[in-house]
Amino acid sequence: MNPELSREFINELRAIIEAKDDRAALELLQDFHPVDIAELYEELDIEEVKYLYMIIDPEIASDVLAELEEDDRERFLKSLPAELIASQFINHMESDDAADVLANLDEETKQEVLRQIKDVEQAGDIVDLLSYDEDTAGGIMAKELIKVNENWSLTTCLREMRKQAENVDDIFYIYVINDDNILTGIVSLKAMLISSSSTIVKDIFEKEIRYVSSDTAAEEVAQIMDKYDLVVLPVVDSIGRLLGRITIDDIVDFIRDEAEKDYQMASGISSDVETTDSPLRLSRARLPWLIIGLIGGVLVAALISQFESDIKLNPEMAFFIPLIAAMAGNVGIQSSAIIVQGLANNSLGLESTFKKLLKEFTVALMNGIILSVMLFLYNLIMKQGLALTYTVSISLFVVINFAALFGTMIPLLLNRMKLDPALATGPFITTTNDIMGLFVYFLMGRILYDVFVI
Amino acid sequence: MNPELSREFINELRAIIEAKDDRAALELLQDFHPVDIAELYEELDIEEVKYLYMIIDPEIASDVLAELEEDDRERFLKSLPAELIASQFINHMESDDAADVLANLDEETKQEVLRQIKDVEQAGDIVDLLSYDEDTAGGIMAKELIKVNENWSLTTCLREMRKQAENVDDIFYIYVINDDNILTGIVSLKAMLISSSSTIVKDIFEKEIRYVSSDTAAEEVAQIMDKYDLVVLPVVDSIGRLLGRITIDDIVDFIRDEAEKDYQMASGISSDVETTDSPLRLSRARLPWLIIGLIGGVLVAALISQFESDIKLNPEMAFFIPLIAAMAGNVGIQSSAIIVQGLANNSLGLESTFKKLLKEFTVALMNGIILSVMLFLYNLIMKQGLALTYTVSISLFVVINFAALFGTMIPLLLNRMKLDPALATGPFITTTNDIMGLFVYFLMGRILYDVFVI
Repeated sequence: MNPELSREFINELRAIIEAKDDRAALELLQDFHPVDIAELYEELDIEEVKYLYMIIDPEIASDVLAELEEDDRERFLKSLPAELIASQFINHMESDDAADVLANLDEETKQEVLRQIKDVEQAGDIVDLLSYDEDTAGGIMAKELIKVNENWSLTTCLREMRKQAENVDDIFYIYVINDDNILTGIVSLKAMLISSSSTIVKDIFEKEIRYVSSDTAAEEVAQIMDKYDLVVLPVVDSIGRLLGRITIDDIVDFIRDEAEKDYQMASGISSDVETTDSPLRLSRARLPWLIIGLIGGVLVAALISQFESDIKLNPEMAFFIPLIAAMAGNVGIQSSAIIVQGLANNSLGLESTFKKLLKEFTVALMNGIILSVMLFLYNLIMKQGLALTYTVSISLFVVINFAALFGTMIPLLLNRMKLDPALATGPFITTTNDIMGLFVYFLMGRILYDVFVI
Repeated sequence: MNPELSREFINELRAIIEAKDDRAALELLQDFHPVDIAELYEELDIEEVKYLYMIIDPEIASDVLAELEEDDRERFLKSLPAELIASQFINHMESDDAADVLANLDEETKQEVLRQIKDVEQAGDIVDLLSYDEDTAGGIMAKELIKVNENWSLTTCLREMRKQAENVDDIFYIYVINDDNILTGIVSLKAMLISSSSTIVKDIFEKEIRYVSSDTAAEEVAQIMDKYDLVVLPVVDSIGRLLGRITIDDIVDFIRDEAEKDYQMASGISSDVETTDSPLRLSRARLPWLIIGLIGGVLVAALISQFESDIKLNPEMAFFIPLIAAMAGNVGIQSSAIIVQGLANNSLGLESTFKKLLKEFTVALMNGIILSVMLFLYNLIMKQGLALTYTVSISLFVVINFAALFGTMIPLLLNRMKLDPALATGPFITTTNDIMGLFVYFLMGRILYDVFVI
């Protein structure tokens, strides 16, 4: 949240909008970056937003629109006629942002907007981009880029680049193509700067470059750009013709979203929600996991009911039910979180599954011994009965080892079955470990209480 | 993990290293990117790694070293003499990577390496960078950049830029300074391309640019670059003199690490670990949270022991202990996760704390009613006693509301106390909610069993 966005500021802005004082509004927002203006959306109602977006410069308005959250943008555009969408926004956007905006409109409005676009080449680019799946390289790339022929001299390049530069916001690399529009390499601005103007591109360009095909999954694009520290990545079609480029800013959001998705899954929130969403939406996002948790709890209750007579005889067995359940859950979540992150980052290494389980088992053994001994000493000092003292510590030890193996295996198994390993975290693994852990506990209790009574 | 990195490949590589066949080794690795070579580290022993890094081109070797995990790099460099560290690695690195590497060496080796650096200017840059705290803009910036005076013509710029370009890997923007080395703006390559060569920089440069001071926290740098989609960000000193630049690739790692840190905290893993770490390290990273969980479990046991007589009388009360504890934990984690992410992303909006709590309470009321009714119907159908049926459902409802408020308040409170709000997730909130939830449950049981017995 922008520090300048105080409650007073919003009130002042709303008063100005109410008075329809264009000049005052523009003055108030003059130092605002489009991102900051986009943040105002949450604090204003839709008519106020509409007023603002219409008086500001279309170049800025289109950037603001591109920065809005997807569902906010959809709601906002529904209130506008197609003509206005084209003239105030789409006409001033790069092709990838324009395609993102249009992708969320209904078919009729989309066609209407496309007809209203002045620049036919831009409209063509947008239609091309709309044909790609939005989770692929084609779906996130921009068509605007600077390309030169490998046979040109730097003088020719510079002349052609001047023409192309008008449509491109940022120039990071210049792409090199052959006569068939096949991507053959890049030439860096640095190389152009330090070479004489009669040099032919072919003599100074880099041939070994990374690129992706338009149907590469967005997730893979993110991994490649992240791993190789790339700022832009060219996109080609199936025979290698240059189609567009993906810039890192589109990918940063994706990388963060992926990391957050795992966290949300582990926290039992099923879809992408924020505190600013409506209570109904927030409720719907959480209810599924809670219901799974509830069903798990009912199953656990059914399991414990099998040991009702034991509890009646030795009610102190009930004291440690939460401890056993919680420790099983905690260990399971720790083990699965490490695997889930390793899978997400491709950092699991070459160790075989067996070796991973063995290592996890070693860790569990160490932690299990330490924790069980601690609990044993505590119960001795507190003068709990010997039967209970042994039961709790031995089952804690068994449960920690079970939960660790389980927490490691399940995400690996899910991954092998091409399911999201993060499913293994959250209520699912907690419930399974609860059931297993308490079963061990009560069984151990039945055996050990017999031993100590004899 | 690179798909080419099969077990067979590693065995082949090790055999070649064993035979000290330089040519075969170089051939095997010729298409490898430094990042891919860095990944081999995990699979080889330190002598094998040393052999490889000495035979490959120093330019590549230095990139490989920069890509290694920090603790791997530290271990590796300990085995090398200072002279070799300088000649094979540091001499070929950009200042920010070099400073990162040197920062982890002991004082004596660091001084020795610095003395061995051939380029005095580079050594000076590194010493400058080492003086910054590593979590600040100064600590992550690189000194290499291209800068021009605002009074120069583009012809002069081009001549000067040719000189400067030799030390810079990637050119994204050209920084503009005045005669006092104060940053006054940037000039884009696009503007240079489309302007005539007699133009003065002053006439085409952008004055309104974002920059940070060298003592800005790295976290804030990441937020600014992420929010405004910046690829590079200039760094200035306290009076505005240009010091260096930060590129997005250094920040992407930071953004991902931040998101992952919250996930690890919520999963009860206290430091940055990977599956490839040693069992001892893995064990140490998890034990603290488990011990907190154990202490929590013991406290819960002490609480339940206060209700021993109730359990002896109505052992079926024990059946639903795990359900109440688990639901309290799940709801608490959901609520806190949303707040923690909102704080991390600065997306909490302007709503007051009171409004947030009110909204969270609405969500909890809805979910609480739905879940309690579901459980009530289940217990009716299963013909549980009425006392138990009412006790379980009413306390579930109360517990869900308590846990939601608690899960919302604690991270906000921690944040206000300048502590990491993610501390609120994981075992801490689970345990607190367990205690609160089970207290409500047994208290409710004592009251309702009396009611239904009468």
